[in-house]
Amino acid sequence: MIIPTFDDVLSARQRIEPYIHRTPVLTSQFMNDLTGAELYFKCENLQKAGAFKARGASNAVFGLSDELAAKGVATHSSGNHGLCLSYAAGRRGIPASVVVPRTAPEAKKQAMRGYGATVVECEPSTTSREQVFAEVVAESGADFVHPYNDPRVIAGQGTCSLELHEDVGPLDAVVAPIGGGGMISGTCLSLSNVSPKTKIFAAEPEQADDACRSFRAGHIIADDAPVTVADGLKVPLKDLTWHFVRNHVSDFLLASEQEIIDAMFITWQRMKIVMEPSSAVPLATILKNKKLFAGKRVGLIITGGNVDLKKLPWMQS
Amino acid sequence: MIIPTFDDVLSARQRIEPYIHRTPVLTSQFMNDLTGAELYFKCENLQKAGAFKARGASNAVFGLSDELAAKGVATHSSGNHGLCLSYAAGRRGIPASVVVPRTAPEAKKQAMRGYGATVVECEPSTTSREQVFAEVVAESGADFVHPYNDPRVIAGQGTCSLELHEDVGPLDAVVAPIGGGGMISGTCLSLSNVSPKTKIFAAEPEQADDACRSFRAGHIIADDAPVTVADGLKVPLKDLTWHFVRNHVSDFLLASEQEIIDAMFITWQRMKIVMEPSSAVPLATILKNKKLFAGKRVGLIITGGNVDLKKLPWMQS
Repeated sequence: MIIPTFDDVLSARQRIEPYIHRTPVLTSQFMNDLTGAELYFKCENLQKAGAFKARGASNAVFGLSDELAAKGVATHSSGNHGLCLSYAAGRRGIPASVVVPRTAPEAKKQAMRGYGATVVECEPSTTSREQVFAEVVAESGADFVHPYNDPRVIAGQGTCSLELHEDVGPLDAVVAPIGGGGMISGTCLSLSNVSPKTKIFAAEPEQADDACRSFRAGHIIADDAPVTVADGLKVPLKDLTWHFVRNHVSDFLLASEQEIIDAMFITWQRMKIVMEPSSAVPLATILKNKKLFAGKRVGLIITGGNVDLKKLPWMQS
Repeated sequence: MIIPTFDDVLSARQRIEPYIHRTPVLTSQFMNDLTGAELYFKCENLQKAGAFKARGASNAVFGLSDELAAKGVATHSSGNHGLCLSYAAGRRGIPASVVVPRTAPEAKKQAMRGYGATVVECEPSTTSREQVFAEVVAESGADFVHPYNDPRVIAGQGTCSLELHEDVGPLDAVVAPIGGGGMISGTCLSLSNVSPKTKIFAAEPEQADDACRSFRAGHIIADDAPVTVADGLKVPLKDLTWHFVRNHVSDFLLASEQEIIDAMFITWQRMKIVMEPSSAVPLATILKNKKLFAGKRVGLIITGGNVDLKKLPWMQS
């Protein structure tokens, strides 16, 4: 296990700078009044390819030697990581293969192809996914870029909270959603170096609370197939992200499905940004833990904005 | 007729600075590839109260002497100006009365009251509106802040393109939506001073093209009740805005209803911002006039983001 260091974050920042947006930090008096805290929203929904994962993916892709890069990169992901790896590989002009369940939304596959990636379909099962992925890698010799359990990816994600810190100064707390733990790990890595007093909270859906239970139990607990509207947060912790979660996260906060949808709606309505359900989990948890954040300067990571505009959760009730 | 000057814009900027956001300018490689131009989106949907009109309204409200301010401000508007005037008056702590047709959405009225304004309902006719408004002003002695035909309002709106110019440097063109002409007039006022070579295009819905026909005819033409999804753009030019349109606008560009909805959808989808149909008209016109903008540096004003998230135009087909 190679644990990335703060130097890796600084290298990542230099490496990926030409390929990512320095995303804006938005504030809202309405949200401040509503929560009783001073909130800073780091808008990674406005990032390249619509998600913070463009950072980690770009760091992995542009850190490869020319020789390795020529063989391309590969991953399995029907979500933002697949999209962002396709984006980064497209920018470098190298092949990318993304193994995706054939049941995944056609729009996502099209978007990956739009960036120049090869979409390889598998059956919607772990067995099929692993088998197909092994074949792809064996055939191409492509470099496997894991969605989060990869030091290059974590170092890349760490550039996000570094920018946030530079733009708004020391924060009392940062709240970020947690799925596999890539964003939280990057946040821990950067803030423990530049702002060690900032508390880091991991926000998770009640219906996919495996990372929270891991944190309380002291070892990784992985659920089989959690069901939540926050579809970016269904994956389990792995050894690298567990390292950061265990050592640097202050606490976990949970939100129900309805609380997530309500927080998403009110953010779209008042802040005029399109964000995924996953990105609404931090605000949902702050709204139900107001005392914890009262009067505090709090950063929230809005992780992504890739959502089906024709199937919004408040339209489906 | 008092025509505002560039000095008025500079004074406005200083006056309103504590009450408005310096909104971000977003770029999108996808949009650049799609249009063949280099686009800069000035995001006034992320402005206070969700619209650029917070600028003009704040300039009017904070420019009043204490004596006049004590009597409050008044306007008639069921749209963003009513909301933004309520916001500005709330910030100064003075009364605001907004005359609104009783048929206007309840959510808009609630939002105005949320900022502390008094909502006065009238029948949905010009006669009733004018009568009720005259009563409100006679009774309160409130200062009338017209939605656009007011030099204080135009000077306030001029701060928007001034920021855009400062942030991205000289542009070949700026495209802004036109309804009554307040934003366009402010844009003309600022850019004719700081960047006289920048061409200014007014983007208008085909179904509410009265300003375009005015421009071609050489005198103001006002339509009775145009029907368009871009509901912020239904009002006619007035003498002050006509002055700027006639003297400074390079040309008018029109878009159909479907083109507006498509441009709105693609902006939400790819740029992850919530914007009104009115704000999509500039992109819609650029997409159908690609040759005109090919290789050019073009600014677009995203005027507002106040839209009913439960009734999106692509949901209604």
